[in-house]
Amino acid sequence: MSETTPAPCAPEDVRRVACIGAGVIGGGWAAHFLARGYDVTAWDPAPDAEEKLRRLVAAAWPALEQMGTAEGAAPERLTVAGSLAEAVADADFVQESAPEKLELKRSLLAELTAATRPGVVIASSTSGYPMTDMQTSAGDPGRLVVGHPFNPPYLIPLVEVVGGERTDRAAVDWASRFYKAAGKSVLTMDRELPGFIANRLQEALWREALHMVASGEATVEDIDASITEGPGLRWAFMGPCLTFALAGGEGGMAHMLDHFGPSLKSPWTRLEAPELDRALRDAMVEGCDRAAGDRSYADLVAARDQGVIDVLRATGRLGGTAR
Amino acid sequence: MSETTPAPCAPEDVRRVACIGAGVIGGGWAAHFLARGYDVTAWDPAPDAEEKLRRLVAAAWPALEQMGTAEGAAPERLTVAGSLAEAVADADFVQESAPEKLELKRSLLAELTAATRPGVVIASSTSGYPMTDMQTSAGDPGRLVVGHPFNPPYLIPLVEVVGGERTDRAAVDWASRFYKAAGKSVLTMDRELPGFIANRLQEALWREALHMVASGEATVEDIDASITEGPGLRWAFMGPCLTFALAGGEGGMAHMLDHFGPSLKSPWTRLEAPELDRALRDAMVEGCDRAAGDRSYADLVAARDQGVIDVLRATGRLGGTAR
Repeated sequence: MSETTPAPCAPEDVRRVACIGAGVIGGGWAAHFLARGYDVTAWDPAPDAEEKLRRLVAAAWPALEQMGTAEGAAPERLTVAGSLAEAVADADFVQESAPEKLELKRSLLAELTAATRPGVVIASSTSGYPMTDMQTSAGDPGRLVVGHPFNPPYLIPLVEVVGGERTDRAAVDWASRFYKAAGKSVLTMDRELPGFIANRLQEALWREALHMVASGEATVEDIDASITEGPGLRWAFMGPCLTFALAGGEGGMAHMLDHFGPSLKSPWTRLEAPELDRALRDAMVEGCDRAAGDRSYADLVAARDQGVIDVLRATGRLGGTAR
Repeated sequence: MSETTPAPCAPEDVRRVACIGAGVIGGGWAAHFLARGYDVTAWDPAPDAEEKLRRLVAAAWPALEQMGTAEGAAPERLTVAGSLAEAVADADFVQESAPEKLELKRSLLAELTAATRPGVVIASSTSGYPMTDMQTSAGDPGRLVVGHPFNPPYLIPLVEVVGGERTDRAAVDWASRFYKAAGKSVLTMDRELPGFIANRLQEALWREALHMVASGEATVEDIDASITEGPGLRWAFMGPCLTFALAGGEGGMAHMLDHFGPSLKSPWTRLEAPELDRALRDAMVEGCDRAAGDRSYADLVAARDQGVIDVLRATGRLGGTAR
């Protein structure tokens, strides 16, 4: 499908990362890679980019030290290049974080494939465009992947990795391995999906929130408090599926779906639910069974309770939870 | 609108709480009220209810002690009554947590208003029915409110309080004050809304998750990891609105909406967004400004970063975030 040659090194042997675009996301990536002990070369066409980038890295560094940096990691290992070509010349991996404009991404990715050593994987931080649409102008599209981070990339572990139609599967796998080696939590997707996974979930919640504000049903403060004082506490360590499985008591997700399934017809959000047929029911039940592993219901409840207490304590809310 | 007499005591002077229904939610409420130092009388028609309830309270108690119980609080201050009338006879407040069946709720609430001392506020834990639909059979509906908790009620602070058409506003206010005195985070709603607030947001996310599983776009594990490794970390202490305001950089929610507003037309979820007109834009911007208060952008970023680090540390994920 492509003529990509093998990457010049194994994902675990990457030494130099190029960050193309050094705003909030690109700069956050630079801070992350520096903290993980990589050499980082950044490039951004804005005249004040270097000053802003160094300020961002300096501001983030105490947080990164708190979390534990890799041996030899230092903000001084950041170089700001004078040109895109210079930035990527020695790079073993490229993270592109330019503004979300399709034409800009297209030409930038084409330029990057031309300037980067053969086989070096180039990842885009895009939160919105499928790689299929962005790789159209690239001479060598097989090594172009999406590596979608969450803000700030130096703290939130998640990165979603997916290729476009012309991406080599090997590049997707290489990028996934690289991000794991760089300390990220990786979700590798088999196919392109608008918004990827986390943003689809986040966007559904966000749109419902906007509807509620638009119709005067809730204020911004109500919405934020309803999450931070409620489901958000659980979601920091237990996802929505396993959380709902616990709502089914000892019967788990099966009981929950069989009992609350009819509520999917209720107008509890503007989003209409899918048909809860046998296949979907079983997929949810089996997924939760896999997630629970050999932990009993009592084990899961204990883990959830301890997690909520730990999160409440960590965020300073033990002993004074009233608004 | 009703003949409710004033409650027999101020919300801060409540001494005895009756928990009607003692399953996962009712039992969780009992554990919460016991930990806050109340006398609790429970009633549940199931033959094994007392045994299960005492087991639930015993299992929750170590967690509650970790969080800090009120002076004099003790699981021994739980009484299990032999009848509904006995359970509520001396109660200063009643929390009803029966199964989600409308006819059952109607007759139970009617029975409760008849058996409880005049003016005592009775709250339903319903997650689905508007009080207007549940209070139809009650002779004295003015003191019936919804007090919707999150599981488990002894750990998750949020409770949503709302009345029905025949509820006295004074009963809603009394209940809100009582829950605050009892250590809860209270969202008092001015009008009934299916799913209240938090569940509408949670349900939108949940339905999108079901759609993704149904169409093979993501697995249960993908969905849970996408939240716990991503947005869920922030939502434990910063709601979706303020989180998105930070995504706008120093320009805040105004920049975020002006820049990313067009993405509301993108198919990033099955939920269609509302029209982002001037009024909605301004409501979001002003709400975020109020939430930020006098904290600068740098202050908010620092608070978010510290919060994420604290949550990662509290949930055992510092130093090993790769899946």
